[in-house]
Amino acid sequence: MIKVWGDTQSGNCYKVQLILEQTGIDYQWQHIDIMSGESRSADFLAMNPNGKIPVVQLDNGDLLAESNAILWYFSHNTALRPSGRNAETALQQWMFFEQYSHEPNIATSRYWIKYCGGGPEYAAGLAAKQPKGYAALDILEQHFKAHDYLVGERYSIADIALYAYTHVAEEGGFSLGKYPGIQQWLDRVAAQKNYIPMH
Amino acid sequence: MIKVWGDTQSGNCYKVQLILEQTGIDYQWQHIDIMSGESRSADFLAMNPNGKIPVVQLDNGDLLAESNAILWYFSHNTALRPSGRNAETALQQWMFFEQYSHEPNIATSRYWIKYCGGGPEYAAGLAAKQPKGYAALDILEQHFKAHDYLVGERYSIADIALYAYTHVAEEGGFSLGKYPGIQQWLDRVAAQKNYIPMH
Repeated sequence: MIKVWGDTQSGNCYKVQLILEQTGIDYQWQHIDIMSGESRSADFLAMNPNGKIPVVQLDNGDLLAESNAILWYFSHNTALRPSGRNAETALQQWMFFEQYSHEPNIATSRYWIKYCGGGPEYAAGLAAKQPKGYAALDILEQHFKAHDYLVGERYSIADIALYAYTHVAEEGGFSLGKYPGIQQWLDRVAAQKNYIPMH
Repeated sequence: MIKVWGDTQSGNCYKVQLILEQTGIDYQWQHIDIMSGESRSADFLAMNPNGKIPVVQLDNGDLLAESNAILWYFSHNTALRPSGRNAETALQQWMFFEQYSHEPNIATSRYWIKYCGGGPEYAAGLAAKQPKGYAALDILEQHFKAHDYLVGERYSIADIALYAYTHVAEEGGFSLGKYPGIQQWLDRVAAQKNYIPMH
């Protein structure tokens, strides 16, 4: 059975949980406590030298890392991955945007607040992330003024990738109040078949 | 003709230049001076709301952003993209590693030094990037102990993606002296057909 090492409160890990549920693949979840260093143990680094969750082990023993690459793997030949050169490029454009311009601002802020307590030592860092995180949300909002989903007018792995940390952005100190387009999209994602909430 | 808005000294833009040269596609290069705000002008933001280079315009007018998604697009049906589910996932794993764990440390350090002058106001930021950038280089070195290329034992878009900033890592304050595996891989990339140096 497929095995996942992760933390269900991590958006990057939740992406994996969501696609496995939505594609009907059985899996075993092994909780990793990043705060106690479990993702930096020798055993873990042997699986992923980058020391990051999630990590997936396939039935043949192969190991996968990088949440959005894992989404690509499990969306193979499913409706979650629109096919064709243009659609593939658009999916990746949004997923690289997520990892470069969205996650390092919104997820990192949430991590400092939710995992690290958000004390005064994080104030300067959090303040610096605010305009960058809102800039990423502005880009999503602009897109959702004209589209229901990110790529191909249907639910895909790009939506899973961006949903993961957008739907908990308020835990990172980002208000979604001024983003009606994002809010409606979040509702559309949560209404998908076999959706499960982060828990 | 394909049009590229970019800066040849930017590794992310150089990736695009390299794949266009290596796949024999004609293109017109429009220099963007990020230091004078050209990537933040209204005209530029209309092309890429994220305000980042490179941006590519195809003959049909379609616009592409995100360097690694652009690599994906131009490697379509070429030897630069090993095919199949496992190879595709491996390519993406390395490219997401590049954008999340390598570029924000090595390229950002290089930007602060090369573009911003690297004055004392950057000292703390540069110091913080040192261990993270070396951690990324350690992961590459470990890989090259057993492999000549990143994916499928042949030159691919994953090599282009990682080469772009690795080969100028010293401009970011990262010594490659203790990385013989990386150095040999850099030589292998530079020996590829239709390779052009960053210039």
